[in-house]
Amino acid sequence: MDLQRINSLIREIPDFPKQGILFKDIFPLFQDPFAVEMVITHIVNHINTTIDKKVDVVVGLDARGFLFGPLIAMRLGAAFAPVRKAGKLPGAVTQVSYEKEYGTDIFEMQQDAIKTGQNVIVIDDLIATGGSAAGAQELIQKLGGNVLEFIFLIELEFLKGKDVLKAPVYSMIKA
Amino acid sequence: MDLQRINSLIREIPDFPKQGILFKDIFPLFQDPFAVEMVITHIVNHINTTIDKKVDVVVGLDARGFLFGPLIAMRLGAAFAPVRKAGKLPGAVTQVSYEKEYGTDIFEMQQDAIKTGQNVIVIDDLIATGGSAAGAQELIQKLGGNVLEFIFLIELEFLKGKDVLKAPVYSMIKA
Repeated sequence: MDLQRINSLIREIPDFPKQGILFKDIFPLFQDPFAVEMVITHIVNHINTTIDKKVDVVVGLDARGFLFGPLIAMRLGAAFAPVRKAGKLPGAVTQVSYEKEYGTDIFEMQQDAIKTGQNVIVIDDLIATGGSAAGAQELIQKLGGNVLEFIFLIELEFLKGKDVLKAPVYSMIKA
Repeated sequence: MDLQRINSLIREIPDFPKQGILFKDIFPLFQDPFAVEMVITHIVNHINTTIDKKVDVVVGLDARGFLFGPLIAMRLGAAFAPVRKAGKLPGAVTQVSYEKEYGTDIFEMQQDAIKTGQNVIVIDDLIATGGSAAGAQELIQKLGGNVLEFIFLIELEFLKGKDVLKAPVYSMIKA
């Protein structure tokens, strides 16, 4: 894959959302549909060649995980299900609280989003400290799902987010 | 198209997000990848057969527009760009305030998301009063874009949201 092309479409924005953070902006990637196609095909090929189980559900984290999740789910013939902050999802939901940089927050999933024993892939644009991904994993397990793998476009390796996750992590770009 | 199948995958949830509102939950649709495929193919076919211009950018509204937007953009070979609430998008942004049921809110787009003269389709899951879609249209026009059409999965016809928009509206399901 032309990783340089993908890399060149990730824009670094200093001091967002707060002072001292170098934000990785993935929206320039979506200005280039061929580059998005390369990313999705790469991830789907990775899943098909390394994961020896049927993926039942692709879970995406609100909101940038929603950009990649349905594209990947459709190629796999899998369901897509969202993880959102408390109060955003209608109907019967299950909650977990998860660690943020300062304090905690609450994630929810709809209770029928995952059935007991289903195999799940979790997708987001970026892993930093891994707090939100760990929260998603706890939520999926509460619903009876089994996380096969976490997939990220970008991994901030120096923050060691992988260490808080209890499933393999695949990231396309390490920064 | 098997509209009955699509309809059966839209769940009505009473009193969400507040008393008296019958919320249309589209997430059961995403449990059925074949049904999502039907929806996307139907919308793309509608665009290709009725719009006589090249679509440059598909704009999706945060967050459920993010589920449909990239799927449609990829099929059209178009860019995808997000509209988000204030403070969520990094870098140089343009703002508009728009009418909500009670009071106003602020929408933002990144300034490089649309170039002058580009043709844009706006996608969201549902149109109610049309306030957020009208805000998106104003934002796109500020950036020099031309809204060819608004596309919604569901239209709540009794709220007459169409009347506040200055471009054609196509909705798959009228409720």
